[in-house]
Order: sequence, then C-alpha cells, then structure tokens
Amino acid sequence: MPRSLTILGASGSIGRSTAEVVLAHRDEFQVEAVVGGRNVPALAEAAKRLNVKFAALSDERAGPALKEALSGTGIASGAGRSAVLEAVDRPSDVVLAAISGTAGLEPTHASLKPGRRIALANKESLVCAGAAFMADARRLGVEIMPVDSEHNALEHALAAGLNRDVEKAVITASGGPFRTWSQEQIARASAKEASVHPVWSMGSKINIDSATLMNKGLELIEAHHLFDLEAERLDVLVHPEAIVHGLVQWADGAVSAGLALPDMRVPIANALRGQERLVMDLPRLDLAAIGRLTFERADEARFPCLALAKAALQAGGAIPTVLNAANEVAVEAYMAGNIGFYAISEIVEAVCSSFSGSGKAPATVADALAIDGEARVMARRLVPAS
Amino acid sequence: MPRSLTILGASGSIGRSTAEVVLAHRDEFQVEAVVGGRNVPALAEAAKRLNVKFAALSDERAGPALKEALSGTGIASGAGRSAVLEAVDRPSDVVLAAISGTAGLEPTHASLKPGRRIALANKESLVCAGAAFMADARRLGVEIMPVDSEHNALEHALAAGLNRDVEKAVITASGGPFRTWSQEQIARASAKEASVHPVWSMGSKINIDSATLMNKGLELIEAHHLFDLEAERLDVLVHPEAIVHGLVQWADGAVSAGLALPDMRVPIANALRGQERLVMDLPRLDLAAIGRLTFERADEARFPCLALAKAALQAGGAIPTVLNAANEVAVEAYMAGNIGFYAISEIVEAVCSSFSGSGKAPATVADALAIDGEARVMARRLVPAS
Repeated sequence: MPRSLTILGASGSIGRSTAEVVLAHRDEFQVEAVVGGRNVPALAEAAKRLNVKFAALSDERAGPALKEALSGTGIASGAGRSAVLEAVDRPSDVVLAAISGTAGLEPTHASLKPGRRIALANKESLVCAGAAFMADARRLGVEIMPVDSEHNALEHALAAGLNRDVEKAVITASGGPFRTWSQEQIARASAKEASVHPVWSMGSKINIDSATLMNKGLELIEAHHLFDLEAERLDVLVHPEAIVHGLVQWADGAVSAGLALPDMRVPIANALRGQERLVMDLPRLDLAAIGRLTFERADEARFPCLALAKAALQAGGAIPTVLNAANEVAVEAYMAGNIGFYAISEIVEAVCSSFSGSGKAPATVADALAIDGEARVMARRLVPAS
Repeated sequence: MPRSLTILGASGSIGRSTAEVVLAHRDEFQVEAVVGGRNVPALAEAAKRLNVKFAALSDERAGPALKEALSGTGIASGAGRSAVLEAVDRPSDVVLAAISGTAGLEPTHASLKPGRRIALANKESLVCAGAAFMADARRLGVEIMPVDSEHNALEHALAAGLNRDVEKAVITASGGPFRTWSQEQIARASAKEASVHPVWSMGSKINIDSATLMNKGLELIEAHHLFDLEAERLDVLVHPEAIVHGLVQWADGAVSAGLALPDMRVPIANALRGQERLVMDLPRLDLAAIGRLTFERADEARFPCLALAKAALQAGGAIPTVLNAANEVAVEAYMAGNIGFYAISEIVEAVCSSFSGSGKAPATVADALAIDGEARVMARRLVPAS
C-alpha cells in the first residue's frame, strides 16, 4: 500500500530533493498535495511530475497563474493561507514540512494530526516554539522524524540505547567558510564571502548561519526538543569533511555515530521510510577512498553565536525564541551590507540580555510568534538605518 | 537485584578486564563461579576478589593446589573437565565465555541454558562450530552478546535498522604490525616482529593472526553467524587508529558506526549490561583531541589469509572449521620458527583446498571438533619437522 504524502515547501531545495526520492519510489508513495510560496512554474511542475491531487501557494496573488498553469491536468489548486491549510488538512500519512523560516511555523504546526508522521525540515517549529510544538505532537501521537542530516544521524545513533544512558549527543559542523580565518579577517568578511558553504548548497540566510555557527547553535536547540536532552548533554564538534553527522557518547564509554555522504536525499529517504528503509541509488560512502576524517573543537571566541545559542538553550524559557528572531533580523542586516559580521552576535546578545518578558517557554505557537515579533522589533532598533 | 555471573577464562586478559568491570559495579553482579586453565594463584586471587561460590581449573592436576590456595575462604573448588562443567551448570544469569581456543568450545557450548545470556569472547564457538552453536542458542532462547569490540560495535550499529536493510557490515582492522611493510619485508618477518600489536595487547597466537589479518577473516566468519549476514554483505576496512570498530551501510546510503577508545572494558561492560548500560569510569573518546581518523583498503595480496577466510566464508560448509584448524597449526609452526610468514597462508590454502569431507556445515559441536582434528592432522603433515 503506498503511503500518502504532502510536501510543504515543494519548490525549495529540500522539496526538490524529496520529489527525487519519491519519483525513485513511485509505488511506495502517493503525493496528496504540494505547497509552495510564490513560484508558480516550479510548483506547477512539481505538481505535475508528482501527479498530486492539490497544489497550493501561500501567495494569494499567485492563485490565478497557478490555476492557469495546471489547467487541463485535473489537479485542483488554491492560493493564500486558507489554501495552504486546506492542503495540510487533506488526508495524508506523512507530511514533509520544509517551508523555511517563521512562515513555515503555522502550516507545520497545523500538520500535526493524530497518527501522522511529520518529516520535519522547518527549524522554527522547534527553535521558536519547540516546547509547544513537541507537547502538541506528543498529545496527538504524531511521530516527528528529523530531516536535518545531523538530527537524522542522532536519531539512528540513539537507537543503540536508552535516553538516560546518553552522556553526550554531539552534532558536527563543517566549520563554515571561515573555519581557518583569523578573528580579524572574519570581522571584515563580506556577506558574499560568508555565503560560500564548503559542503552543502543551501539558501543564503542559512549560509550566513553556517558562517557564524549559529546554525549549529539552532540545531542544538532542535536536538534538545527532538530527543529530550538538556543543554549539558549536547555539544558541537567541527568536522570539515561533513561525513560524520552526529555522535552519541554512552555512559559506558561506547560511542554510536551516524555517517553519510553529504546528500540531503539520504536523510529525506530516511525520514520517509516505512518499516523498511528506501533503497536509494546513490553513491555509497567509501571511507578508504576518502582516506581521512578530521575533527576540531568549535572555537566560540571566533564564533560567538555558538556560545550565545548554547547560553540560550541553557537559559531556556523564551530566550531561544528571542535568540532566533534577533538572529534573523541581524543576518538580514548583514546580508544587506548594513552591519559587520560580528555585529550579528552583538545584536543577538543585546536582545537576549535585555528581553524582559516572562521567563517561561511560550506555551502555544501563537505565544511563540508574539515573542518572536517582539524580539524582532527590539533587534531592528539596534540595526543602523541603511 | 544483582545478576549472577560465571566467568570462563577468569585468569586471562578478558577475564581480568571483566573482573575490573564487575568490581566497579559490585551491587549489580554476584559472581557465581570462575573457571581458569592451570594458573592456580591467578584463579585463586580472582575467586577471592570476586567473592565467588565456586572456582574450577581445567587442569585436573592443579586441584589440590587450588583447594589449598582457597582454604579458609569458604569458596568451593574443583579441577578437571567435570569441575569446569559443574561451574557452567551452576545457576547464573550471564556467562562470560572467554576461554580461548578450541579448549573453550565445549564449556562455552555447555553454557547454553534456557534464558541465559552468553557474553561471548570465545571465537571458536562461532568460527569452528558456528552453525551448530547458533542453532542451539536459538533453540534454547539464549541471547549471545559479542565481547569483541568489532562485533559489539556492529551490534549497536545494527540497532538502527532491520537485517534486510543492511547492504554491508564492515569491521575495521588496525592493519597489524606489517601494515606499511612491503611483501618482501613481510616474507622475512620473524614471529617476534609479528607479535607486536600496534593497538591492543593480546595473547601471542592472536597477535600473529592480527599480523596476517586472519584475525579479521575469522571475525567476518563470527559476524556471519552472530548477525545472519552472508559473505557478500561483510567486509573489512583498515583503520590504524582503531577508534571506529564497526560500520553498517544501509540500503538508503546512511551508515551507522560504533566507536570507542580501544579498551576491552567498554565492550565487556556493554555485553554485561542490563536494560541500562553500566556507567564506566574510563576516559571518554575525544575526537577533537585525536584530530583525525584514517582508513585504507585491506591489501589481500600482502595479506592472503584475509582472502582465504573470505573464500572460506563464501564456500561455507565445513571449510571455515578447516581454515581455523589449519591456521592454528600453521601459526604454531611459525611461532616455533619452523616456517616463514607466508607459509601460514600456503598451509591454510592447501588444507582448505584438499579437504575432502562432506560439504555440509558440522551439525553438532562434536562433528565440528572431529573436522577440526582431521584438518589439524592434514596441516601438520605440511609443516617441516623442527
């Protein structure tokens, strides 16, 4: 029996990789619906290739163009918030949630339906509203499968034991484009220099987060929610080859690790699998050909965003939500050329330390979005006008 | 509730490491019995430190000395085959089976009792009589936990999926003392040079097996029986640092690995654990401090014993039993200085290819021992008189 699947963020990078995985296993999936942002041709093409029943764009104005692009295919379509929520409400066993940013929070949260699995690529569901999101998932019996290669690796490594036996769960970082740069060089780095990722090709905001190592910090916060591990049991290790994605150190000294060539189709296939894994026709990891794997400590002096994210995870409550929002505003300003590299961490630190809201973690997604908004206002005040 | 434990091979290297693990977790274990070979002081000391109820030596003549050494302690003792079998018959939840060589086969096999766990370090139970041994273990509901670091690592890596999703299970080899030597240099190597293991301190026969890579070949045969994986799904990777002990490549391209600092107490603690892992006060693996891990293909031209073992696994039937017996005879002759390094593989190959017995795997341990004896006779004929 094929499983039914809905893809949120179908025209983005993860969505396109998901389509490849699905098309390689046509008998195992039936794609119910695809959701995109505003890219009409990309979504229409995905809808046709995947032979979906319904396609939705979040941009209301794109509705007529999408309808036109799908005319004669028999694929129903819609646009705007209600169409996105309609896509999410349609019956499907698995929802791959890959709308990026805060925009993905509402539809991802709306995807939580009893008995469903969510293959989760939307970071904000956990970073901005993790406690509320996971509480709802648990209440509804929704299985959350991480699509990030790091969390996917941890999930497999954690299969070798019990949560209480985990001493440390470690995610790896390629180190970003500035791994070998001095603090002085990094201070003067342009957004263009920061956007070159050594291993993965990703969107531009996440490339900057990789350069600051904030990306790893946010991943620690995600791991905390996904695996019920406190700040003290989570850490980051720099590993430039990006082959080992996650490691678990057990109480007896043994270590379990998840490895793979850096290809998003591997964790996607993993998150979409049934009882058996999907057979993927991809190159296999050949450690003898690679020859060596290297590891370094993460340098929190050159990459203060990592220390800030760890501190936010330690502080808990609303601070991770605040950190994430302030970081988005600061990264935007950096990409626009309005601030320097280290102003990103300065703004994040300033907003986190002056945030005066309740110490509690937001209890609902709406609360999280309110705090997110408040923190963005505070952060914008710290950005010089362009 | 402490679990009761019997240690076979208590005065050997694995037995001593086991005693350390047990003494660090006094509340969790009660040692019922210890079994040794002929070393009276070592076994008496182990018996006293572990506060056992019964101690047995396989060497019948050592009985009076053992009784004398334990007088006044309240520890009962015995010597000879019947005493060893008495130790095995006493009630215990777990038997750590670490008598080395073919001598360990009978008592290890006799340890198979309904509901028991065997923490298995005796290679011959699997290499010489694997099919019979595992069939009896399954029939009696005995859980077999491997104590070898490689198989222990595989066991944990395999927890991340199903057997049918395993494309390849790989055990690592340090490469032995001749990893970087040319074939000409290796051909002239003395037994003393071959006995220096780069990572582990072990007994002398196993050191030679590490130098020829036969040890890895035998471990492949073990893995075949332990994990129900055919020859095509098993392989060896050279990894001089001996940190990654085993890897599993899944059908979707992901890889799960088991790592640990090379310390036998880690897999021993693992094999002895209950539902939770034992907390071990040992140094933790610090990959950033180690800096790099390297990997190479195993060179079957310089190390033909590995190819012979793979071929024996592929051939199946009685050939793995024959290979193991011929290897023991050849290694003894090499250690005695009667043959050169590459005569080991020549003798093994000659005996395997001229063995004319039934093609079937020995159905009982007795059958396996008979084939073992026959192969030894054949091998001895090929060794020049000293």
